Amino acid sequence: MKFCSNCGSSNVRFEVPPGDNRPRHVCADCNTIHYINPRIVTGTLPVWDDQVLLCLRAIHPRKGYWTLPAGFLENGETIAAGAARETEEEANARVSDLQLYTVFSLPHISQAYMFFRARLSDLDFSSGTESLDVRLFREHEIPWDELAFPVIRESLEFYFEDRQSDDYPVRSRELVFDRR
Amino acid sequence: MKFCSNCGSSNVRFEVPPGDNRPRHVCADCNTIHYINPRIVTGTLPVWDDQVLLCLRAIHPRKGYWTLPAGFLENGETIAAGAARETEEEANARVSDLQLYTVFSLPHISQAYMFFRARLSDLDFSSGTESLDVRLFREHEIPWDELAFPVIRESLEFYFEDRQSDDYPVRSRELVFDRR
Repeated sequence: MKFCSNCGSSNVRFEVPPGDNRPRHVCADCNTIHYINPRIVTGTLPVWDDQVLLCLRAIHPRKGYWTLPAGFLENGETIAAGAARETEEEANARVSDLQLYTVFSLPHISQAYMFFRARLSDLDFSSGTESLDVRLFREHEIPWDELAFPVIRESLEFYFEDRQSDDYPVRSRELVFDRR
Repeated sequence: MKFCSNCGSSNVRFEVPPGDNRPRHVCADCNTIHYINPRIVTGTLPVWDDQVLLCLRAIHPRKGYWTLPAGFLENGETIAAGAARETEEEANARVSDLQLYTVFSLPHISQAYMFFRARLSDLDFSSGTESLDVRLFREHEIPWDELAFPVIRESLEFYFEDRQSDDYPVRSRELVFDRR
């Protein structure tokens, strides 16, 4: 933060405010404390019979790798509504019966990922602007070596494991990576 | 947002950026798009034998009402670590064995609440700066009419219900209130 978004001053310091215990961007002129907090990425694991829908990323990072449809939760949205919206945007697909399934903490990038199992409503899907391709995969067809992110791999692994017992408890995981 | 935090310009407009579908704060001078996203509130439901720890709020909103220890997740933190930190800050209490338990969407205030069941490590707790009192309550002692927020009531109701079967599935709920 180079300038205070409240008063426009360039006199913004990164320091521990009184009564706090960690540094924040603090405006030395108007005293506004600017908090920055982790963001939520919400998505779906869309299912059609024994198949799962994946999207081939058209954008960085991990362009050209397969992902579950997901993106940043927006203000005013429920987490499930955000997951359905991202599925519509990235795969032009409609889903129903969303059930929270995986929750990931990714502290190194200050994000929380949440995926919902969902029923694909119909086969009328196609690539959204952020996707190069959208396809259904059976378990043995999953491109395990071409998945975009660890959260995608883990969610799919949990799903195919749980599908054997038809019991899908919510899975909460921490994925801590060293950024170096 | 009155001023662009990147260039200091006051020429910030609230408009839909190209390729987007909802209004953002966009700087007309340096073209920076400023995104604002929901925040995560993380906390614990600390258990000691058949008792649950609650904190009496010393701060607004809902000052003088009972709550579970919780607060905003910080950058660089896992969701569980944030819950344990808030428990330490508000109740000077240490917890272990955190298990994700309730997940709430509160779109009207753009927050997601997440509570972890946790084992209270010892009885050496006391009021932190944001609490007027910290106490253990048995089920019949819970001050149901003096709880701070619906997410507190629901988490406690789920807990005492699930305790009968000693089975605690993750509960995901949407609490949509009209702000008018």
